[in-house]
Amino acid sequence: MCCENTRSMNFNRPLILASSSPRRQFLMREAGFEFTIEKPDVDESFPAELPVEQVARYLANKKAEYFRTEIHNEIIVTADTVVILDGEILNKPADRNEAISMLSRLNGKTHTVMTGVCILSAGKEESFDDTTTVTFRKLTQQEIEFYVHQYKPYDKAGAYGAQDFIGMIAIERIEGSYFNVMGLPIHKVYEHLKNWS
Amino acid sequence: MCCENTRSMNFNRPLILASSSPRRQFLMREAGFEFTIEKPDVDESFPAELPVEQVARYLANKKAEYFRTEIHNEIIVTADTVVILDGEILNKPADRNEAISMLSRLNGKTHTVMTGVCILSAGKEESFDDTTTVTFRKLTQQEIEFYVHQYKPYDKAGAYGAQDFIGMIAIERIEGSYFNVMGLPIHKVYEHLKNWS
Repeated sequence: MCCENTRSMNFNRPLILASSSPRRQFLMREAGFEFTIEKPDVDESFPAELPVEQVARYLANKKAEYFRTEIHNEIIVTADTVVILDGEILNKPADRNEAISMLSRLNGKTHTVMTGVCILSAGKEESFDDTTTVTFRKLTQQEIEFYVHQYKPYDKAGAYGAQDFIGMIAIERIEGSYFNVMGLPIHKVYEHLKNWS
Repeated sequence: MCCENTRSMNFNRPLILASSSPRRQFLMREAGFEFTIEKPDVDESFPAELPVEQVARYLANKKAEYFRTEIHNEIIVTADTVVILDGEILNKPADRNEAISMLSRLNGKTHTVMTGVCILSAGKEESFDDTTTVTFRKLTQQEIEFYVHQYKPYDKAGAYGAQDFIGMIAIERIEGSYFNVMGLPIHKVYEHLKNWS
């Protein structure tokens, strides 16, 4: 059976995805990984002086830190996704008004999505990131308000999900990996894990 | 309720998606459309002398042609997606060997995906297309054979689905709309239908 191992990625050791994001879980499953989920209890703050393009990887590493002292035979994957507009990070919106305000800022413009990933095992650690630019066409205020009202995107950086209604009607162009915008550059995670020893 | 109509796209007339592709049906549903499905009985041949970048729209128009004489109050959406590599169209693969051969050609290279769309009602017809370039990283022969064995991508132009296992591990970069690669430039369809009268 040539192919079994390609699919099941059997490391003979447990794989843990340290993320409660259903999108990341979906991508890992579809790419053929078997894993369990553990959520790191980490505050997602970062130093104010950190360059914005280093924040995603910094936060992925910070989440990995949480597991470092308790690691045995496992391989842990952590990730963090940020949305950057005009050199500024758009976090998860606190409420309806902030979500509408974020989407109004993204409206008709090109922004950047970066996901940082850290893979950690007892003897080894690798972290990397991936960058995608996303261009929104011009939405109406009604479309933005409808989306926030209906989808309540409060768990999403930048207040939108690429695979949601708004991703479908707004995103006219991306440059880079689409799955990175969903929350995980799965082609890179796969390549790293495939060669993990 | 400001937003109801944004979601349900209520034209007061029936919308028909003339495609059996589950991906297209998914995209139309997620974008908020209610529709029924009718499959046009059309052979998907095209004139050999037709420039490759006109084929997708030609075939979308050909499918629309099928409905023209029977149209009453409906709005019909037809679509066709083609994969173009080195100026040549890769169709749906006939069998396992052809699928492996197509993926081996796409492997490690950049290709183009074009979807043509035709929207037709009694008084009006519009057709348009959308182009995305897709870059595959280098896969192993084992990964290609595993995918074809497991996913049997015989209903897919170019022998792959962007949302499948192989899309996740192979696609490192796209330029354009991801949903266009899935089979429908949904942002353009939405915009056309929103303004349909």
